[in-house]
Amino acid sequence: MHFSHRVDVSRPNAISLAELQARRDGVTLTKLNDSNPTRHGLAPAGVPGVYEANPRGQSAARRALAEFLSSGGVDGDADAPSAIDADGVDPDHLYLLSSTSEAYSWLMKLLCDPGDAVLAPKPGYPLIESIARLENVEAVEYSQIYDGSWMIDIAEIEGLLDESEADATAPNIRALVLINPNNPTGSYVKPDERRRLVELCARRDVAIIADEVFYDYALEPFDGNARLAGERGVLTFALDGFSKMLAAPHAKVGWIRVSGPDADVAEAMARLDVIADDFLPMSDIIADRVPELLGDAVSQTNRVRARTRANLATLHAMLETDDLGVVSVLRAEGGWNVLLRFPSSVDESELVLSLIRDQHATAQPGFFFDMTVNGYLAVSLLPEPQVFEAGIRAVLSAVRQMVLG
Amino acid sequence: MHFSHRVDVSRPNAISLAELQARRDGVTLTKLNDSNPTRHGLAPAGVPGVYEANPRGQSAARRALAEFLSSGGVDGDADAPSAIDADGVDPDHLYLLSSTSEAYSWLMKLLCDPGDAVLAPKPGYPLIESIARLENVEAVEYSQIYDGSWMIDIAEIEGLLDESEADATAPNIRALVLINPNNPTGSYVKPDERRRLVELCARRDVAIIADEVFYDYALEPFDGNARLAGERGVLTFALDGFSKMLAAPHAKVGWIRVSGPDADVAEAMARLDVIADDFLPMSDIIADRVPELLGDAVSQTNRVRARTRANLATLHAMLETDDLGVVSVLRAEGGWNVLLRFPSSVDESELVLSLIRDQHATAQPGFFFDMTVNGYLAVSLLPEPQVFEAGIRAVLSAVRQMVLG
Ligand SMILES: Cc1ncc(COP(=O)(O)O)c(C=O)c1O
Ligand SMILES: Cc1ncc(COP(=O)(O)O)c(C=O)c1O
Repeated sequence: MHFSHRVDVSRPNAISLAELQARRDGVTLTKLNDSNPTRHGLAPAGVPGVYEANPRGQSAARRALAEFLSSGGVDGDADAPSAIDADGVDPDHLYLLSSTSEAYSWLMKLLCDPGDAVLAPKPGYPLIESIARLENVEAVEYSQIYDGSWMIDIAEIEGLLDESEADATAPNIRALVLINPNNPTGSYVKPDERRRLVELCARRDVAIIADEVFYDYALEPFDGNARLAGERGVLTFALDGFSKMLAAPHAKVGWIRVSGPDADVAEAMARLDVIADDFLPMSDIIADRVPELLGDAVSQTNRVRARTRANLATLHAMLETDDLGVVSVLRAEGGWNVLLRFPSSVDESELVLSLIRDQHATAQPGFFFDMTVNGYLAVSLLPEPQVFEAGIRAVLSAVRQMVLG
Repeated sequence: MHFSHRVDVSRPNAISLAELQARRDGVTLTKLNDSNPTRHGLAPAGVPGVYEANPRGQSAARRALAEFLSSGGVDGDADAPSAIDADGVDPDHLYLLSSTSEAYSWLMKLLCDPGDAVLAPKPGYPLIESIARLENVEAVEYSQIYDGSWMIDIAEIEGLLDESEADATAPNIRALVLINPNNPTGSYVKPDERRRLVELCARRDVAIIADEVFYDYALEPFDGNARLAGERGVLTFALDGFSKMLAAPHAKVGWIRVSGPDADVAEAMARLDVIADDFLPMSDIIADRVPELLGDAVSQTNRVRARTRANLATLHAMLETDDLGVVSVLRAEGGWNVLLRFPSSVDESELVLSLIRDQHATAQPGFFFDMTVNGYLAVSLLPEPQVFEAGIRAVLSAVRQMVLG
């Protein structure tokens, strides 16, 4: 596996080696240079406790999370394929941080020298391209194609990897971002796609970054979905967090789970530790609450599922009974958003502008997610039922007006 | 002022312009694509409230912080030179984030294309070089020189800027990092140094990053110290946070205050907003507590000051009465650390190895901070008095053994 040169893994000097040896010999060294005030009785009463300053995040919080994940997570489905390693999730393979965005940023630093590339899905979540740019990394798009359901264009990915190998001027591709399920297409990575992609990435020394924040929000899934978290066939970084699991984006709790061939995992984590040590991202104020908040994961996921599923049913009913009948919804396997499809004679941008002007509503057109053709609108399934229904009515009426003139 | 190409500030499209216009017209648009669950009654009971998702951090927390800073901060010294703008600190010029490390990372993204450089003090805090490397930025060192007190080698800085301008292969220098006071030298930026550096940076289009986390911890200061925060002569990003102010590194609360010529500030903030919007770093769980925690700033700073000052007095007394009399301490103007000086015939590394072996204590030798000559040890003033005294005794005894053999 290739790692970037950004991370300094210079050999430990004589002093760090002696410190390590003392620790191994059971000797506790007094650190005369310790500038952690909480170790000297100086923490404020409002944030008590001794700061462990663990780069991977507070151990107690990681243990609680590992236990939750080992028991199968939200659906307690510990037997789901690859949901867990045989012996459960190792807390030491988890990095707690503040968001999926931060996780992307760290992983790009870990894997990519400036000018290197990651493969990201199109249509997809535009934040990835923006973060890549901030990290001096190129986001190269691979296609998801819709023919009643979405599929990943694996031949295209293979072609991009070939090109990157053959053409010295093409950027080196260091990671494949899989969003499982993808936003806004709602499509899960299918079992056969996963098999082929893991095999392909392992062969080409490409790591997988699996963003699974929406995983538990199935809507109209196909059979055989599985999380990539815990995948052993190739170096895999699986991302998840409270943003979706607890409907709590404001908590700012996310994590990376590292898995794959042992040697790759060890090397990746040694380097990720250097990055994590520079940022020490998880506040004890939050980490202290992780175990308690995990207790709400099941009820919160169920609550949001009830909302998204009810709204999707409403949407289907409204589209079926709409007498013009020109708006449809793409099969939404999972997630919080769906894509509405309307006649391509209606310009997406014009449609949204008319929504803003006449209906006091706004939405994201397909081009925002790099859809390749005109005629889509992304709509959230989260609003309260009446608000959702009114929103869809507004869209139908705007489309009607533009079609009928 | 130069800004990096990493930040995408492409012009707003027709839809965002129409949304903006609607907002200006007082129209509230229903966002059909809103995927913030807290706006749809779905936040968990444990983290209630509606997530504002403000890239600069929760407004209430920023207002509380601005008020605290406007009233002169810890020492209530609102009249200190440049401690505040004439009309107080504008909350909109503050960015809340999780650490000074994150602030450095964002500012390097904002200012530096890959291969660009920032000037950082030597001796200095080694984290800056490590973060620069993660951001594909070069940390070019400028010297601080000791002759009874530390001074910044401004001629060297000028030479480095000249070279960067004259030599097309030299990296472009985009920012000057000033650590006020510096760690571990403890030296404040002196009034005349500041005047010359601000003038120089303004003339050369170089931004100032002023790390002032230790500012309030004066030990043996010279007269005329001032924070760079609020400086108007050149684009200035001042960093501070609870890590030192509250002795709470585990709270993970930091901030950037932006100041300088109006046009530069406006352009910098528009771009910093893009970065902040990708990461939205401040958790509401923490932000909600910022006003209350600020209430502890004065007592915590005083508590830590009492500790560091008492330990420094102990240190002076011990060095004076030490009969070998070969160890001294460099004048420590401020901060939490001091530099001990011993005969250069004693190798720093050997000294620390003997401390580990014979005294079960460890410390950081000068080379760790890029001191240019051998013979220094950095020691923290934070430990409880007896622990501190025992630590210094251990050092004196190790030095004695190495000198006398
Ligand atoms: C694909 C995807 N990943 C992650 C996130 C959330 O990330 P965070 O953890 O930064 O809130 C979103 C939010 O919309 C998303 O669509
Ligand atoms: C110069 C300097 N800046 C900042 C920090 C603290 O940074 P943070 O806010 O990331 O805890 C330290 C800690 O030792 C420091 O020495």
